[in-house]
Amino acid sequence: MARRKKIYEGKAKILYEGPEPGTFVQYFKDDATAYNAEKRDVIEGKGVLNNRLSEFFMTGLNHIGVPTHFLKRINMREQLIRSVEIIPLEVIVRNFAAGTISKRLGLEEGTALPRPIVEFCYKDDALGDPLVSEEHIIAFGWASQQDMDDMVALALRVNDYMSGLMYGVGIKLVDFKIEIGRVWEGDYQRLIIADEISPDSCRLWDIETGQKLDKDVFRRDLGNLTDAYTEVARRLGVMPANATHMPKPTLIN
Amino acid sequence: MARRKKIYEGKAKILYEGPEPGTFVQYFKDDATAYNAEKRDVIEGKGVLNNRLSEFFMTGLNHIGVPTHFLKRINMREQLIRSVEIIPLEVIVRNFAAGTISKRLGLEEGTALPRPIVEFCYKDDALGDPLVSEEHIIAFGWASQQDMDDMVALALRVNDYMSGLMYGVGIKLVDFKIEIGRVWEGDYQRLIIADEISPDSCRLWDIETGQKLDKDVFRRDLGNLTDAYTEVARRLGVMPANATHMPKPTLIN
Ligand SMILES: Nc1ncnc2c1ncn2[C@@H]1O[C@H](COP(=O)(O)OP(=O)(O)O)[C@@H](O)[C@H]1O
Ligand SMILES: Nc1ncnc2c1ncn2[C@@H]1O[C@H](COP(=O)(O)OP(=O)(O)O)[C@@H](O)[C@H]1O
Ligand SMILES: [Mg+2]
Ligand SMILES: [Mg+2]
Repeated sequence: MARRKKIYEGKAKILYEGPEPGTFVQYFKDDATAYNAEKRDVIEGKGVLNNRLSEFFMTGLNHIGVPTHFLKRINMREQLIRSVEIIPLEVIVRNFAAGTISKRLGLEEGTALPRPIVEFCYKDDALGDPLVSEEHIIAFGWASQQDMDDMVALALRVNDYMSGLMYGVGIKLVDFKIEIGRVWEGDYQRLIIADEISPDSCRLWDIETGQKLDKDVFRRDLGNLTDAYTEVARRLGVMPANATHMPKPTLIN
Repeated sequence: MARRKKIYEGKAKILYEGPEPGTFVQYFKDDATAYNAEKRDVIEGKGVLNNRLSEFFMTGLNHIGVPTHFLKRINMREQLIRSVEIIPLEVIVRNFAAGTISKRLGLEEGTALPRPIVEFCYKDDALGDPLVSEEHIIAFGWASQQDMDDMVALALRVNDYMSGLMYGVGIKLVDFKIEIGRVWEGDYQRLIIADEISPDSCRLWDIETGQKLDKDVFRRDLGNLTDAYTEVARRLGVMPANATHMPKPTLIN
């Protein structure tokens, strides 16, 4: 394969120029970071699992008419995606209190929320991705009111779908974060789900035992992260149990 | 248990007076009917499976804030439900063409629909549950425009949730039918999901093989219906594989 142009390298993924205009290749690294990258490690096999799981979730969402950037998986660590203009907001949907909302509002972890709560955080590592309100978003022009309404509607559909998907395999979807981007079709813009949906970006608790099957295992040193993600993949029938331990393809850039 | 008053006996279920006002006990029979009851049989174990599966789906829906009549399971064949004023419409959501829409519109079975299609059928066995349009529904006063908007919104949420739930265990949700009823809270009415959600009321196809895991197995003589429903229950971890073959509780009415 020819040498590709690197577009962006982030904390967990690398974007390369894609084979056609309007596409990128998204490469999933094994790097894990938490607490705004103060804690970091390399977790063997994480990238492979997240590549497969994000493929699985986004394929399912595409099927039900929730548009995503996912086009196709290329190999164990790479997928072809539509390039979008990322809206600089992390969209968080919470069904149960955990993480920052527990601290901010003094809610015990696991408390059921009265209804799903959609939060927006301004995507800026230097500022620690701060929570923002609709006022801030409009005032600074990060998104229009229409965009926000569309984002909330998309996020709630993702929540219903992912809640069902997880419930069917004995997992509670506590919360998740998505990123959303614009694509242009002639003069019209449309919003689609971008980035990734994986145990890096969800909180997933076993319904029976409460065991955490997500990035909190890394954040809070609760055990082996790859084992947790493998358990999610296994329950969903997404990949053979030992596939993460296959050799990595050589990284050419 | 004291002798209970039978409220209604239908084709697949019996309703009894519940222990408290505003509740019924719903008993799941093994009777299967199709083509407006022209074809009928008794399928050992079906009632047990549908009782458990309907419990499982409605519990999940209650969790995500889609209100249902389900209160709690009582035993292998019975569940406690809220009594509602049933809206006399079957609400059908279709993701792929199958059954009557295939015939009516000449669509090959399995054709993906451009988007989920919500249909209303007037619930009347003598008429064969005919498809009706919003015009008919308003004209005959079966539901208001507001009711219909609420029913469509509920039905689409059920569709997203159930699509995810099934996708996670390798099953395609082709279509399903729900019934919706009114409950009164003081002067206000609210619509909630009633009746049952089970392989009797859904079309479920294995994603890999296309194998049918729903009532079409009975309708079209494709094999053992209990085996098909057991496979759905097994994938969802809903019940031990042999639980359907336990003795029936004695029916007291
Ligand atoms: N379809 C897409 N088009 C353009 N950018 C995307 C797309 N999907 C994800 N991104 C961006 O690519 C980056 C993914 O790498 P990641 O390691 O998550 O970065 P970060 O450290 O900035 O979170 C993110 O900045 C994300 O916003
Ligand atoms: N919560 C409820 N309150 C009142 N009626 C209900 C409720 N749930 C279901 N029903 C009604 O109970 C009956 C269930 O029995 P079933 O065998 O399905 O009957 P049918 O042959 O009329 O379809 C249906 O007529 C359904 O509309
Ligand atoms: Mg990121
Ligand atoms: Mg019925």
